Amino acid sequence: MEFSSKLLEKAVNEMSQLPGIGKRTALRLVLHLLKQPKEQTELLTSALLNMCDSIKFCKSCHNISDIDICEICANSSRDQSVICVVEDVRDVMALENTGIFKGLYHVLGGKISPIDGVGPSQLNIVTLVEKVKSGTVREVIFALSSTMEGDTTNFYIYKQIKDFNVTTSAIARGIAIGDELEYADEVTLGRSLIQRIPFENSLNSK
Amino acid sequence: MEFSSKLLEKAVNEMSQLPGIGKRTALRLVLHLLKQPKEQTELLTSALLNMCDSIKFCKSCHNISDIDICEICANSSRDQSVICVVEDVRDVMALENTGIFKGLYHVLGGKISPIDGVGPSQLNIVTLVEKVKSGTVREVIFALSSTMEGDTTNFYIYKQIKDFNVTTSAIARGIAIGDELEYADEVTLGRSLIQRIPFENSLNSK
Repeated sequence: MEFSSKLLEKAVNEMSQLPGIGKRTALRLVLHLLKQPKEQTELLTSALLNMCDSIKFCKSCHNISDIDICEICANSSRDQSVICVVEDVRDVMALENTGIFKGLYHVLGGKISPIDGVGPSQLNIVTLVEKVKSGTVREVIFALSSTMEGDTTNFYIYKQIKDFNVTTSAIARGIAIGDELEYADEVTLGRSLIQRIPFENSLNSK
Repeated sequence: MEFSSKLLEKAVNEMSQLPGIGKRTALRLVLHLLKQPKEQTELLTSALLNMCDSIKFCKSCHNISDIDICEICANSSRDQSVICVVEDVRDVMALENTGIFKGLYHVLGGKISPIDGVGPSQLNIVTLVEKVKSGTVREVIFALSSTMEGDTTNFYIYKQIKDFNVTTSAIARGIAIGDELEYADEVTLGRSLIQRIPFENSLNSK
């Protein structure tokens, strides 16, 4: 791509560093900003810089937070003895949206993935094991995505906590509510058969 | 969407102002920036601010440029008497990539679109008409997209310059090179029949 301006080229190059944003999309976004009043670009850039400067991570669950201990961890009406292990803040948001879960979270910050250079030491695993060791945790729920990396991470953590007095569980995998069986993939459908539940339980699952 | 941090929420909200970027995509982009070293966010924001602060538009063709008269307009080996009218800088880049056009451009900065509140006065039309009036222009090539807005804009400009001694033309519409006829839309295929060219001309068109 040949640019008529070095300033434009630099802005497009930086914008296209973002995941899923190619050069053409970056150019479209940058030209949009150029057409807007300068204030919009200033709002965007100051919001991004403020976030990078001042954002904190909850010292207990490692979720993104503006305070040292996040609202979820500080909420005494939640069950402090149940911990749901998730990958990142988006998973916390998705689970909170269900309104079902009343325990606490533990945000790992990623999954073990040697191919991306992410080992266990880069994740928030030590603090999770310490929580379990301290004896205050009754149940650990694994809610990572069911990929190879997710399974590896689950198993790595499971091995470290299984000898302590703690129940471990994983969220159910199966056919989504409202989905047609004929369109489901074989692995999910097969798993949903093997892990079938008593019919009475399925009635009050919603 | 419930955010665990106001700083995160603000960054996501500003990011989702960009066209085609929804809240979920914005969250993904912002979390990506958070995972990177802070320098990457600083590079992005400074590139955007520098661009908005210092970018110039060529005083002759209104293309984005770092200097008063852009490289294309200042290039004396180009044919200064042929002007190709385009919508924005992306069209200039696309046409330059062909390597075919040796004249100058005139960037309108948009199309007449009452529904978006864009009238002729917001576009760079007056300077184009003045160029034609000055008598130095031999041909004006219309290369706007063939939408209702594009056609309206073409016609508006055409009416203002047709009485001067200037040839007007429009880029050819037809079946793209390499495309199968059976998949072409009826309008394009019909137009390509009506506007057929002598066979000999089709041979040296590539």
